[in-house]
Amino acid sequence: MKTVNTISEARDEIAGWKEAGHSVGFVPTMGFLHEGHLELIRHAASENRRTAVSIFVNPTQFGPNEDFESYPRDLERDLELAKEAGADLVFAPAASEMYRGTPAVTMKAAARTDVLCGESRPGHFDGVVTVLTKLFHILQPDRAYFGKKDAQQVAVVKGLTDEFFFPLEIVPVETVRESDGLAKSSRNVFLTEDERMQAPKIYKALQAGQRNYEDGFHAESAKTEILRHLAEIEGGETDYAEILQYPELVPVTEQSREIIAAAAVKFSGARLIDNIIWTVNKGGN
Amino acid sequence: MKTVNTISEARDEIAGWKEAGHSVGFVPTMGFLHEGHLELIRHAASENRRTAVSIFVNPTQFGPNEDFESYPRDLERDLELAKEAGADLVFAPAASEMYRGTPAVTMKAAARTDVLCGESRPGHFDGVVTVLTKLFHILQPDRAYFGKKDAQQVAVVKGLTDEFFFPLEIVPVETVRESDGLAKSSRNVFLTEDERMQAPKIYKALQAGQRNYEDGFHAESAKTEILRHLAEIEGGETDYAEILQYPELVPVTEQSREIIAAAAVKFSGARLIDNIIWTVNKGGN
Repeated sequence: MKTVNTISEARDEIAGWKEAGHSVGFVPTMGFLHEGHLELIRHAASENRRTAVSIFVNPTQFGPNEDFESYPRDLERDLELAKEAGADLVFAPAASEMYRGTPAVTMKAAARTDVLCGESRPGHFDGVVTVLTKLFHILQPDRAYFGKKDAQQVAVVKGLTDEFFFPLEIVPVETVRESDGLAKSSRNVFLTEDERMQAPKIYKALQAGQRNYEDGFHAESAKTEILRHLAEIEGGETDYAEILQYPELVPVTEQSREIIAAAAVKFSGARLIDNIIWTVNKGGN
Repeated sequence: MKTVNTISEARDEIAGWKEAGHSVGFVPTMGFLHEGHLELIRHAASENRRTAVSIFVNPTQFGPNEDFESYPRDLERDLELAKEAGADLVFAPAASEMYRGTPAVTMKAAARTDVLCGESRPGHFDGVVTVLTKLFHILQPDRAYFGKKDAQQVAVVKGLTDEFFFPLEIVPVETVRESDGLAKSSRNVFLTEDERMQAPKIYKALQAGQRNYEDGFHAESAKTEILRHLAEIEGGETDYAEILQYPELVPVTEQSREIIAAAAVKFSGARLIDNIIWTVNKGGN
Protein backbone atom coordinates (compact mmCIF):
# COMPACT_ATOMS: atom_id res chain seq x y z
CA MET A 1 0.00 0.00 0.00
CA LYS A 2 1.25 3.44 -0.95
CA THR A 3 0.58 6.64 1.00
CA VAL A 4 0.71 10.03 -0.72
CA ASN A 5 0.03 13.56 0.49
CA THR A 6 -0.05 15.59 -2.72
CA ILE A 7 -2.51 15.72 -5.59
CA SER A 8 0.29 15.33 -8.08
CA GLU A 9 1.54 12.08 -6.48
CA ALA A 10 -2.01 10.75 -6.30
CA ARG A 11 -2.56 11.57 -9.98
CA ASP A 12 0.66 9.76 -10.94
CA GLU A 13 -0.42 6.63 -9.11
CA ILE A 14 -3.93 6.68 -10.58
CA ALA A 15 -2.56 7.32 -14.08
CA GLY A 16 -0.53 4.12 -13.80
CA TRP A 17 -3.64 2.16 -12.81
CA LYS A 18 -5.71 3.66 -15.62
CA GLU A 19 -3.01 2.93 -18.17
CA ALA A 20 -2.99 -0.71 -17.07
CA GLY A 21 -6.79 -0.80 -17.49
CA HIS A 22 -7.41 -1.40 -13.77
CA SER A 23 -10.78 -0.56 -12.27
CA VAL A 24 -10.59 1.83 -9.32
CA GLY A 25 -12.73 1.73 -6.17
CA PHE A 26 -12.69 4.70 -3.82
CA VAL A 27 -13.59 5.13 -0.14
CA PRO A 28 -13.56 8.75 1.08
CA THR A 29 -13.04 9.06 4.87
CA MET A 30 -12.15 11.62 7.51
CA GLY A 31 -9.87 9.06 9.11
CA PHE A 32 -10.04 7.54 12.61
CA LEU A 33 -11.24 4.44 10.81
CA HIS A 34 -13.78 2.11 12.41
CA GLU A 35 -15.46 -1.12 11.36
CA GLY A 36 -17.87 0.75 9.07
CA HIS A 37 -15.01 2.24 7.05
CA LEU A 38 -13.19 -1.08 6.89
CA GLU A 39 -16.33 -2.75 5.55
CA LEU A 40 -16.43 -0.11 2.78
CA ILE A 41 -12.77 -0.70 1.95
CA ARG A 42 -13.30 -4.47 1.85
CA HIS A 43 -16.29 -3.98 -0.46
CA ALA A 44 -14.27 -1.70 -2.74
CA ALA A 45 -11.34 -4.12 -2.79
CA SER A 46 -13.61 -7.04 -3.68
CA GLU A 47 -15.22 -5.21 -6.61
CA ASN A 48 -12.25 -3.35 -8.11
CA ARG A 49 -8.74 -4.19 -9.17
CA ARG A 50 -7.39 -1.21 -7.18
CA THR A 51 -8.73 0.58 -4.11
CA ALA A 52 -7.96 4.14 -3.06
CA VAL A 53 -8.85 5.58 0.35
CA SER A 54 -8.75 9.27 1.22
CA ILE A 55 -8.11 10.40 4.77
CA PHE A 56 -8.95 14.07 5.02
CA VAL A 57 -10.70 15.95 7.79
CA ASN A 58 -12.49 18.39 5.52
CA PRO A 59 -12.71 21.81 7.19
CA THR A 60 -15.51 23.08 4.93
CA GLN A 61 -18.06 20.55 6.16
CA PHE A 62 -17.75 21.64 9.80
CA GLY A 63 -19.90 24.47 11.11
CA PRO A 64 -18.35 27.29 13.15
CA ASN A 65 -19.51 25.65 16.41
CA GLU A 66 -18.57 22.12 15.40
CA ASP A 67 -15.58 20.04 16.40
CA PHE A 68 -13.13 20.44 13.48
CA GLU A 69 -10.12 21.11 15.72
CA SER A 70 -10.91 18.32 18.16
CA TYR A 71 -12.00 15.79 15.54
CA PRO A 72 -10.03 12.62 16.41
CA ARG A 73 -7.00 11.85 14.22
CA ASP A 74 -4.68 8.82 14.23
CA LEU A 75 -3.04 8.49 10.82
CA GLU A 76 -0.57 5.78 11.76
CA ARG A 77 -3.28 3.43 13.02
CA ASP A 78 -5.53 4.33 10.03
CA LEU A 79 -2.81 3.36 7.56
CA GLU A 80 -2.39 -0.02 9.26
CA LEU A 81 -6.14 -0.68 9.21
CA ALA A 82 -6.64 0.50 5.62
CA LYS A 83 -3.83 -1.75 4.45
CA GLU A 84 -5.27 -4.78 6.26
CA ALA A 85 -8.71 -4.10 4.75
CA GLY A 86 -7.27 -4.11 1.23
CA ALA A 87 -6.42 -0.51 0.28
CA ASP A 88 -3.73 0.00 -2.38
CA LEU A 89 -3.42 3.76 -2.01
CA VAL A 90 -4.10 6.20 0.81
CA PHE A 91 -4.38 9.86 -0.16
CA ALA A 92 -3.93 12.01 2.96
CA PRO A 93 -3.54 15.64 1.89
CA ALA A 94 -3.13 18.74 4.03
CA ALA A 95 -6.01 21.23 3.98
CA SER A 96 -3.77 23.68 2.08
CA GLU A 97 -3.40 21.10 -0.69
CA MET A 98 -7.15 20.80 -1.18
CA TYR A 99 -8.12 24.46 -0.62
CA ARG A 100 -5.89 27.11 -2.18
CA GLY A 101 -7.26 30.48 -1.18
CA THR A 102 -10.55 32.12 -2.06
CA PRO A 103 -12.51 29.73 -4.30
CA ALA A 104 -13.09 30.83 -7.91
CA VAL A 105 -16.18 28.61 -8.12
CA THR A 106 -18.38 27.31 -5.30
CA MET A 107 -20.89 24.46 -4.99
CA LYS A 108 -24.11 24.34 -3.05
CA ALA A 109 -26.15 21.28 -2.09
CA ALA A 110 -29.50 22.80 -3.01
CA ALA A 111 -31.84 19.90 -2.19
CA ARG A 112 -32.14 16.94 0.20
CA THR A 113 -30.36 18.93 2.91
CA ASP A 114 -33.03 20.68 4.98
CA VAL A 115 -34.41 17.51 6.61
CA LEU A 116 -33.08 14.83 8.99
CA CYS A 117 -29.61 15.67 10.31
CA GLY A 118 -29.08 18.35 7.65
CA GLU A 119 -31.64 20.62 9.26
CA SER A 120 -29.30 21.32 12.18
CA ARG A 121 -26.11 21.54 10.08
CA PRO A 122 -26.49 24.41 7.58
CA GLY A 123 -23.69 24.43 5.00
CA HIS A 124 -22.46 20.97 6.00
CA PHE A 125 -23.44 19.30 2.74
CA ASP A 126 -22.01 22.19 0.67
CA GLY A 127 -18.64 21.21 2.13
CA VAL A 128 -19.33 17.54 1.42
CA VAL A 129 -20.17 18.01 -2.28
CA THR A 130 -17.23 20.41 -2.71
CA VAL A 131 -14.62 18.07 -1.29
CA LEU A 132 -16.07 15.01 -3.04
CA THR A 133 -15.99 16.77 -6.41
CA LYS A 134 -12.30 17.50 -5.85
CA LEU A 135 -11.56 13.96 -4.65
CA PHE A 136 -13.48 12.37 -7.54
CA HIS A 137 -11.46 14.43 -10.02
CA ILE A 138 -8.15 13.56 -8.36
CA LEU A 139 -8.74 9.82 -7.89
CA GLN A 140 -11.07 9.21 -10.88
CA PRO A 141 -12.76 6.14 -9.43
CA ASP A 142 -15.08 3.82 -11.32
CA ARG A 143 -17.00 3.26 -8.08
CA ALA A 144 -17.20 5.18 -4.81
CA TYR A 145 -18.44 3.54 -1.61
CA PHE A 146 -20.61 5.12 1.08
CA GLY A 147 -22.29 3.60 4.14
CA LYS A 148 -26.08 3.53 4.18
CA LYS A 149 -25.86 4.41 7.88
CA ASP A 150 -25.52 8.01 6.73
CA ALA A 151 -28.37 7.72 4.22
CA GLN A 152 -28.75 11.46 3.81
CA GLN A 153 -25.11 11.75 2.77
CA VAL A 154 -25.66 8.98 0.20
CA ALA A 155 -28.72 10.85 -1.09
CA VAL A 156 -26.85 14.14 -1.42
CA VAL A 157 -23.88 12.44 -3.09
CA LYS A 158 -26.22 10.65 -5.54
CA GLY A 159 -27.76 14.07 -6.21
CA LEU A 160 -24.28 15.45 -6.94
CA THR A 161 -23.16 12.69 -9.29
CA ASP A 162 -26.52 12.46 -11.10
CA GLU A 163 -26.77 16.23 -11.51
CA PHE A 164 -23.30 16.64 -12.99
CA PHE A 165 -23.03 13.26 -14.77
CA PHE A 166 -19.87 12.18 -12.99
CA PRO A 167 -18.49 9.13 -14.80
CA LEU A 168 -18.66 6.89 -11.74
CA GLU A 169 -21.05 4.72 -9.77
CA ILE A 170 -22.08 5.45 -6.19
CA VAL A 171 -22.27 2.17 -4.25
CA PRO A 172 -24.24 2.39 -0.98
CA VAL A 173 -23.08 -0.30 1.44
CA GLU A 174 -25.41 -1.97 3.94
CA THR A 175 -25.20 -0.83 7.57
CA VAL A 176 -23.27 -3.27 9.76
CA ARG A 177 -25.24 -4.21 12.89
CA GLU A 178 -24.53 -5.83 16.24
CA SER A 179 -26.31 -9.16 16.82
CA ASP A 180 -29.12 -7.31 18.62
CA GLY A 181 -29.69 -4.99 15.65
CA LEU A 182 -27.89 -1.86 16.90
CA ALA A 183 -26.11 -0.14 14.02
CA LYS A 184 -22.34 -0.17 14.58
CA SER A 185 -20.93 3.26 15.35
CA SER A 186 -17.84 4.67 17.00
CA ARG A 187 -20.22 6.52 19.30
CA ASN A 188 -21.74 3.34 20.79
CA VAL A 189 -18.85 3.16 23.30
CA PHE A 190 -20.10 6.40 24.87
CA LEU A 191 -23.39 4.73 25.94
CA THR A 192 -23.92 3.66 29.57
CA GLU A 193 -24.64 -0.01 30.15
CA ASP A 194 -28.37 0.73 30.50
CA GLU A 195 -28.40 2.90 27.37
CA ARG A 196 -26.62 0.17 25.42
CA MET A 197 -29.47 -2.17 26.38
CA GLN A 198 -32.04 0.36 25.17
CA ALA A 199 -30.30 1.42 21.95
CA PRO A 200 -31.37 -1.53 19.73
CA LYS A 201 -34.95 -0.29 20.12
CA ILE A 202 -34.19 2.41 17.54
CA TYR A 203 -33.80 -0.21 14.82
CA LYS A 204 -36.89 -2.06 16.09
CA ALA A 205 -38.90 1.17 15.96
CA LEU A 206 -37.86 1.72 12.33
CA GLN A 207 -38.81 -1.86 11.46
CA ALA A 208 -42.22 -1.35 13.10
CA GLY A 209 -42.59 1.81 10.99
CA GLN A 210 -41.85 -0.13 7.81
CA ARG A 211 -44.41 -2.85 8.70
CA ASN A 212 -47.00 -0.20 9.47
CA TYR A 213 -46.31 1.55 6.15
CA GLU A 214 -46.59 -1.68 4.18
CA ASP A 215 -49.94 -2.41 5.82
CA GLY A 216 -51.66 0.78 4.74
CA PHE A 217 -49.21 2.96 2.77
CA HIS A 218 -49.84 5.87 5.13
CA ALA A 219 -46.60 7.72 5.87
CA GLU A 220 -48.06 9.73 8.75
CA SER A 221 -49.37 6.61 10.45
CA ALA A 222 -45.99 4.88 10.03
CA LYS A 223 -44.19 7.90 11.47
CA THR A 224 -46.53 7.90 14.48
CA GLU A 225 -45.78 4.22 14.96
CA ILE A 226 -42.02 4.91 14.99
CA LEU A 227 -42.43 7.80 17.44
CA ARG A 228 -44.55 5.59 19.72
CA HIS A 229 -41.79 2.97 19.83
CA LEU A 230 -39.02 5.55 20.32
CA ALA A 231 -40.94 7.07 23.24
CA GLU A 232 -40.53 3.76 25.08
CA ILE A 233 -36.71 4.03 25.06
CA GLU A 234 -35.62 4.73 28.66
CA GLY A 235 -32.98 7.47 28.95
CA GLY A 236 -33.21 8.32 25.24
CA GLU A 237 -34.80 11.48 23.87
CA THR A 238 -36.16 11.38 20.30
CA ASP A 239 -34.51 14.02 18.11
CA TYR A 240 -36.47 13.20 14.94
CA ALA A 241 -38.26 10.38 13.15
CA GLU A 242 -39.22 10.66 9.48
CA ILE A 243 -40.69 8.65 6.65
CA LEU A 244 -39.56 10.11 3.31
CA GLN A 245 -39.14 9.27 -0.35
CA TYR A 246 -35.59 8.14 -1.09
CA PRO A 247 -33.19 9.46 -2.31
CA GLU A 248 -35.08 12.75 -2.85
CA LEU A 249 -35.90 13.10 0.88
CA VAL A 250 -39.27 14.69 0.10
CA PRO A 251 -42.69 13.69 1.50
CA VAL A 252 -43.89 10.26 0.39
CA THR A 253 -46.47 10.23 -2.41
CA GLU A 254 -48.40 7.52 -4.25
CA GLN A 255 -45.56 7.43 -6.78
CA SER A 256 -42.74 6.89 -4.28
CA ARG A 257 -40.77 3.76 -5.08
CA GLU A 258 -38.07 3.85 -2.41
CA ILE A 259 -38.84 4.84 1.16
CA ILE A 260 -36.54 5.71 4.05
CA ALA A 261 -37.48 5.51 7.71
CA ALA A 262 -34.89 7.43 9.73
CA ALA A 263 -34.53 8.42 13.36
CA ALA A 264 -32.11 10.12 15.73
CA VAL A 265 -32.13 9.58 19.50
CA LYS A 266 -30.10 11.45 22.11
CA PHE A 267 -28.63 9.50 25.02
CA SER A 268 -26.55 11.00 27.84
CA GLY A 269 -23.22 10.43 26.10
CA ALA A 270 -24.10 10.04 22.42
CA ARG A 271 -26.67 10.89 19.79
CA LEU A 272 -27.40 7.82 17.66
CA ILE A 273 -28.87 7.78 14.14
CA ASP A 274 -30.23 4.87 12.16
CA ASN A 275 -32.37 4.26 9.10
CA ILE A 276 -33.82 1.59 6.87
CA ILE A 277 -34.59 1.96 3.18
CA TRP A 278 -36.97 -0.28 1.27
CA THR A 279 -38.59 -0.55 -2.11
CA VAL A 280 -42.35 -0.21 -2.24
CA ASN A 281 -44.05 -3.37 -3.48
CA LYS A 282 -47.75 -2.86 -4.08
CA GLY A 283 -49.59 -5.94 -5.23
CA GLY A 284 -46.50 -7.97 -6.03
CA ASN A 285 -45.37 -6.15 -9.20
CA MET B 1 -17.81 11.70 -37.92
CA LYS B 2 -20.50 10.49 -35.57
CA THR B 3 -23.37 12.62 -34.20
CA VAL B 4 -25.11 11.67 -30.96
CA ASN B 5 -27.88 13.34 -28.95
CA THR B 6 -27.87 11.41 -25.68
CA ILE B 7 -25.39 11.26 -22.83
CA SER B 8 -25.42 7.50 -22.90
CA GLU B 9 -24.44 7.36 -26.61
CA ALA B 10 -21.71 9.94 -26.03
CA ARG B 11 -20.36 7.92 -23.09
CA ASP B 12 -20.28 4.75 -25.22
CA GLU B 13 -18.29 6.47 -27.93
CA ILE B 14 -15.82 8.02 -25.46
CA ALA B 15 -15.43 4.71 -23.61
CA GLY B 16 -14.27 3.11 -26.87
CA TRP B 17 -11.69 5.84 -27.39
CA LYS B 18 -10.44 5.59 -23.79
CA GLU B 19 -10.15 1.84 -24.05
CA ALA B 20 -8.03 2.22 -27.16
CA GLY B 21 -5.81 4.68 -25.28
CA HIS B 22 -6.71 7.60 -27.55
CA SER B 23 -6.25 11.16 -26.33
CA VAL B 24 -9.42 13.26 -26.49
CA GLY B 25 -9.66 16.94 -27.42
CA PHE B 26 -12.89 18.81 -26.79
CA VAL B 27 -14.40 22.01 -28.21
CA PRO B 28 -17.60 23.17 -26.48
CA THR B 29 -19.80 25.39 -28.68
CA MET B 30 -23.32 26.77 -28.86
CA GLY B 31 -23.38 25.95 -32.56
CA PHE B 32 -23.75 28.31 -35.54
CA LEU B 33 -20.07 27.66 -36.06
CA HIS B 34 -17.80 30.36 -37.44
CA GLU B 35 -14.11 30.58 -38.28
CA GLY B 36 -13.17 30.94 -34.58
CA HIS B 37 -14.82 27.63 -33.69
CA LEU B 38 -13.28 25.89 -36.69
CA GLU B 39 -9.85 27.11 -35.63
CA LEU B 40 -10.45 25.55 -32.19
CA ILE B 41 -11.55 22.26 -33.75
CA ARG B 42 -8.49 22.22 -36.04
CA HIS B 43 -6.25 22.86 -33.02
CA ALA B 44 -7.92 20.07 -31.05
CA ALA B 45 -7.66 17.67 -34.00
CA SER B 46 -3.97 18.44 -34.43
CA GLU B 47 -3.13 17.79 -30.77
CA ASN B 48 -5.35 14.80 -29.99
CA ARG B 49 -6.08 11.42 -31.52
CA ARG B 50 -9.83 12.09 -31.24
CA THR B 51 -11.83 15.32 -31.21
CA ALA B 52 -15.29 15.83 -29.73
CA VAL B 53 -17.40 18.93 -30.33
CA SER B 54 -20.53 19.79 -28.36
CA ILE B 55 -23.29 21.87 -29.93
CA PHE B 56 -25.63 23.00 -27.19
CA VAL B 57 -27.35 26.35 -26.73
CA ASN B 58 -27.15 26.34 -22.95
CA PRO B 59 -30.28 27.97 -21.49
CA THR B 60 -28.72 28.59 -18.05
CA GLN B 61 -26.12 31.04 -19.35
CA PHE B 62 -28.72 33.37 -20.86
CA GLY B 63 -30.24 36.11 -18.72
CA PRO B 64 -34.03 36.66 -18.68
CA ASN B 65 -33.69 39.56 -21.17
CA GLU B 66 -31.16 37.84 -23.41
CA ASP B 67 -31.66 36.15 -26.74
CA PHE B 68 -31.91 32.43 -25.88
CA GLU B 69 -34.96 31.82 -28.07
CA SER B 70 -33.64 33.80 -31.04
CA TYR B 71 -30.04 32.56 -30.75
CA PRO B 72 -29.15 31.38 -34.28
CA ARG B 73 -29.18 27.63 -34.90
CA ASP B 74 -28.19 25.64 -38.00
CA LEU B 75 -27.26 22.10 -37.01
CA GLU B 76 -26.99 20.68 -40.51
CA ARG B 77 -24.46 23.29 -41.60
CA ASP B 78 -22.61 22.97 -38.28
CA LEU B 79 -22.18 19.22 -38.72
CA GLU B 80 -20.72 19.74 -42.18
CA LEU B 81 -18.27 22.39 -40.93
CA ALA B 82 -17.26 20.42 -37.82
CA LYS B 83 -16.54 17.35 -39.95
CA GLU B 84 -14.41 19.35 -42.39
CA ALA B 85 -12.43 20.88 -39.52
CA GLY B 86 -11.59 17.44 -38.14
CA ALA B 87 -14.21 16.52 -35.52
CA ASP B 88 -14.78 12.81 -34.84
CA LEU B 89 -17.84 13.20 -32.65
CA VAL B 90 -20.53 15.85 -32.30
CA PHE B 91 -22.61 15.75 -29.13
CA ALA B 92 -25.81 17.75 -29.67
CA PRO B 93 -28.16 17.09 -26.74
CA ALA B 94 -31.59 18.56 -26.06
CA ALA B 95 -31.89 20.85 -23.03
CA SER B 96 -33.97 18.18 -21.28
CA GLU B 97 -31.04 15.76 -21.60
CA MET B 98 -28.65 18.14 -19.83
CA TYR B 99 -31.06 19.57 -17.23
CA ARG B 100 -33.45 17.16 -15.55
CA GLY B 101 -35.64 19.16 -13.21
CA THR B 102 -34.72 21.11 -10.10
CA PRO B 103 -30.97 20.78 -9.57
CA ALA B 104 -29.83 18.87 -6.47
CA VAL B 105 -26.52 20.74 -6.46
CA THR B 106 -25.69 24.13 -7.98
CA MET B 107 -22.45 25.87 -8.97
CA LYS B 108 -21.57 29.52 -8.73
CA ALA B 109 -18.73 31.36 -10.45
CA ALA B 110 -17.66 33.33 -7.37
CA ALA B 111 -14.73 35.30 -8.78
CA ARG B 112 -13.49 36.87 -12.03
CA THR B 113 -17.10 37.61 -13.04
CA ASP B 114 -17.93 41.14 -11.87
CA VAL B 115 -15.65 42.93 -14.34
CA LEU B 116 -15.49 43.34 -18.13
CA CYS B 117 -18.50 41.77 -19.88
CA GLY B 118 -19.51 39.85 -16.75
CA GLU B 119 -20.56 43.04 -14.99
CA SER B 120 -23.58 43.38 -17.26
CA ARG B 121 -24.45 39.64 -17.33
CA PRO B 122 -25.20 38.50 -13.76
CA GLY B 123 -25.49 34.70 -13.51
CA HIS B 124 -24.07 34.17 -17.00
CA PHE B 125 -20.88 32.49 -15.80
CA ASP B 126 -22.79 30.32 -13.28
CA GLY B 127 -24.48 28.77 -16.30
CA VAL B 128 -21.14 28.44 -18.08
CA VAL B 129 -19.37 26.57 -15.24
CA THR B 130 -22.45 24.39 -14.69
CA VAL B 131 -22.75 23.21 -18.27
CA LEU B 132 -18.99 22.78 -18.69
CA THR B 133 -18.79 20.62 -15.58
CA LYS B 134 -21.48 18.39 -17.08
CA LEU B 135 -19.82 18.30 -20.52
CA PHE B 136 -16.37 17.58 -19.06
CA HIS B 137 -17.81 14.63 -17.12
CA ILE B 138 -19.64 13.27 -20.17
CA LEU B 139 -16.83 13.66 -22.72
CA GLN B 140 -13.83 13.26 -20.36
CA PRO B 141 -11.38 15.18 -22.53
CA ASP B 142 -7.64 15.36 -21.96
CA ARG B 143 -7.69 18.90 -23.35
CA ALA B 144 -10.46 21.45 -23.84
CA TYR B 145 -10.06 24.36 -26.28
CA PHE B 146 -11.30 27.93 -25.77
CA GLY B 147 -10.72 31.06 -27.81
CA LYS B 148 -8.73 33.87 -26.19
CA LYS B 149 -11.17 36.29 -27.84
CA ASP B 150 -13.42 35.60 -24.87
CA ALA B 151 -10.61 35.96 -22.34
CA GLN B 152 -12.94 36.32 -19.39
CA GLN B 153 -14.55 32.99 -20.22
CA VAL B 154 -11.11 31.38 -20.37
CA ALA B 155 -10.28 32.92 -16.97
CA VAL B 156 -13.49 31.64 -15.37
CA VAL B 157 -13.03 28.18 -16.90
CA LYS B 158 -9.42 28.05 -15.65
CA GLY B 159 -10.80 29.03 -12.24
CA LEU B 160 -13.28 26.14 -12.44
CA THR B 161 -10.80 23.47 -13.46
CA ASP B 162 -8.08 24.65 -11.07
CA GLU B 163 -10.50 24.93 -8.14
CA PHE B 164 -11.93 21.44 -8.58
CA PHE B 165 -8.83 19.73 -9.96
CA PHE B 166 -10.47 18.52 -13.16
CA PRO B 167 -8.15 15.97 -14.81
CA LEU B 168 -7.80 17.96 -18.03
CA GLU B 169 -5.89 20.83 -19.56
CA ILE B 170 -7.50 24.09 -20.69
CA VAL B 171 -5.90 25.24 -23.95
CA PRO B 172 -6.51 28.92 -24.81
CA VAL B 173 -6.24 29.46 -28.57
CA GLU B 174 -4.98 32.71 -30.10
CA THR B 175 -7.55 35.11 -31.53
CA VAL B 176 -7.80 34.96 -35.32
CA ARG B 177 -7.54 38.44 -36.90
CA GLU B 178 -8.25 40.02 -40.26
CA SER B 179 -5.18 41.39 -42.07
CA ASP B 180 -5.90 44.85 -40.60
CA GLY B 181 -5.92 43.48 -37.04
CA LEU B 182 -9.69 43.30 -36.43
CA ALA B 183 -10.54 40.22 -34.39
CA LYS B 184 -12.70 37.83 -36.40
CA SER B 185 -16.28 37.66 -35.15
CA SER B 186 -19.68 36.65 -36.52
CA ARG B 187 -20.81 40.11 -35.51
CA ASN B 188 -18.42 41.94 -37.89
CA VAL B 189 -20.93 41.51 -40.74
CA PHE B 190 -23.35 43.80 -38.88
CA LEU B 191 -20.92 46.76 -39.17
CA THR B 192 -21.54 49.49 -41.74
CA GLU B 193 -18.76 50.07 -44.26
CA ASP B 194 -17.55 53.10 -42.31
CA GLU B 195 -17.66 51.20 -39.00
CA ARG B 196 -15.72 48.32 -40.53
CA MET B 197 -12.99 50.84 -41.41
CA GLN B 198 -12.94 52.14 -37.84
CA ALA B 199 -13.13 48.79 -36.02
CA PRO B 200 -9.42 47.79 -36.31
CA LYS B 201 -8.66 50.78 -34.07
CA ILE B 202 -9.83 48.73 -31.08
CA TYR B 203 -6.89 46.35 -31.46
CA LYS B 204 -4.52 49.28 -32.09
CA ALA B 205 -5.78 50.98 -28.91
CA LEU B 206 -5.04 47.81 -26.89
CA GLN B 207 -1.56 47.58 -28.42
CA ALA B 208 -0.93 51.21 -27.51
CA GLY B 209 -2.04 50.37 -23.96
CA GLN B 210 0.42 47.49 -23.78
CA ARG B 211 3.30 49.68 -25.01
CA ASN B 212 2.38 52.36 -22.47
CA TYR B 213 2.29 49.78 -19.68
CA GLU B 214 5.66 48.33 -20.62
CA ASP B 215 7.17 51.82 -20.57
CA GLY B 216 6.23 52.67 -17.00
CA PHE B 217 4.30 49.75 -15.45
CA HIS B 218 1.44 52.07 -14.56
CA ALA B 219 -1.91 50.39 -15.18
CA GLU B 220 -3.92 53.61 -14.81
CA SER B 221 -1.77 55.41 -17.34
CA ALA B 222 -2.08 52.50 -19.79
CA LYS B 223 -5.86 52.45 -19.36
CA THR B 224 -6.01 56.20 -20.05
CA GLU B 225 -3.95 55.63 -23.19
CA ILE B 226 -6.41 52.97 -24.40
CA LEU B 227 -9.42 55.21 -23.68
CA ARG B 228 -7.75 58.08 -25.53
CA HIS B 229 -7.34 55.90 -28.63
CA LEU B 230 -10.86 54.46 -28.39
CA ALA B 231 -12.31 57.98 -28.18
CA GLU B 232 -10.96 58.59 -31.67
CA ILE B 233 -13.13 55.85 -33.19
CA GLU B 234 -15.83 57.54 -35.26
CA GLY B 235 -19.31 56.06 -34.73
CA GLY B 236 -18.11 53.80 -31.92
CA GLU B 237 -18.95 54.33 -28.25
CA THR B 238 -16.55 52.91 -25.66
CA ASP B 239 -18.32 50.46 -23.33
CA TYR B 240 -15.28 49.67 -21.19
CA ALA B 241 -11.48 49.49 -21.27
CA GLU B 242 -9.52 47.74 -18.54
CA ILE B 243 -6.00 46.69 -17.63
CA LEU B 244 -6.13 43.75 -15.19
CA GLN B 245 -4.07 40.89 -13.84
CA TYR B 246 -4.75 37.69 -15.76
CA PRO B 247 -6.40 35.23 -15.23
CA GLU B 248 -7.54 36.56 -11.83
CA LEU B 249 -9.07 39.71 -13.38
CA VAL B 250 -8.13 41.81 -10.34
CA PRO B 251 -6.27 45.15 -10.31
CA VAL B 252 -2.66 44.94 -11.48
CA THR B 253 -0.03 44.93 -8.71
CA GLU B 254 3.77 44.83 -8.63
CA GLN B 255 3.52 41.03 -8.51
CA SER B 256 1.31 40.61 -11.57
CA ARG B 257 2.93 38.33 -14.13
CA GLU B 258 0.24 38.19 -16.82
CA ILE B 259 -1.71 41.27 -17.85
CA ILE B 260 -4.83 41.64 -19.97
CA ALA B 261 -5.88 44.78 -21.80
CA ALA B 262 -9.52 44.45 -22.82
CA ALA B 263 -12.09 46.72 -24.39
CA ALA B 264 -15.65 46.74 -25.70
CA VAL B 265 -16.96 49.23 -28.22
CA LYS B 266 -20.58 49.72 -29.36
CA PHE B 267 -21.24 50.43 -33.03
CA SER B 268 -24.69 50.96 -34.56
CA GLY B 269 -25.19 47.27 -35.43
CA ALA B 270 -22.79 45.39 -33.18
CA ARG B 271 -20.89 45.58 -29.92
CA LEU B 272 -17.31 44.37 -30.47
CA ILE B 273 -14.91 43.07 -27.82
CA ASP B 274 -11.21 42.44 -28.05
CA ASN B 275 -8.25 41.86 -25.74
CA ILE B 276 -4.55 41.16 -25.65
CA ILE B 277 -2.73 39.26 -22.90
CA TRP B 278 1.00 39.49 -22.29
CA THR B 279 3.57 38.34 -19.78
CA VAL B 280 5.34 41.03 -17.79
CA ASN B 281 9.05 41.13 -18.44
CA LYS B 282 10.88 43.49 -16.11
CA GLY B 283 14.59 43.81 -16.76
CA GLY B 284 14.86 40.71 -18.92
CA ASN B 285 14.38 38.03 -16.22
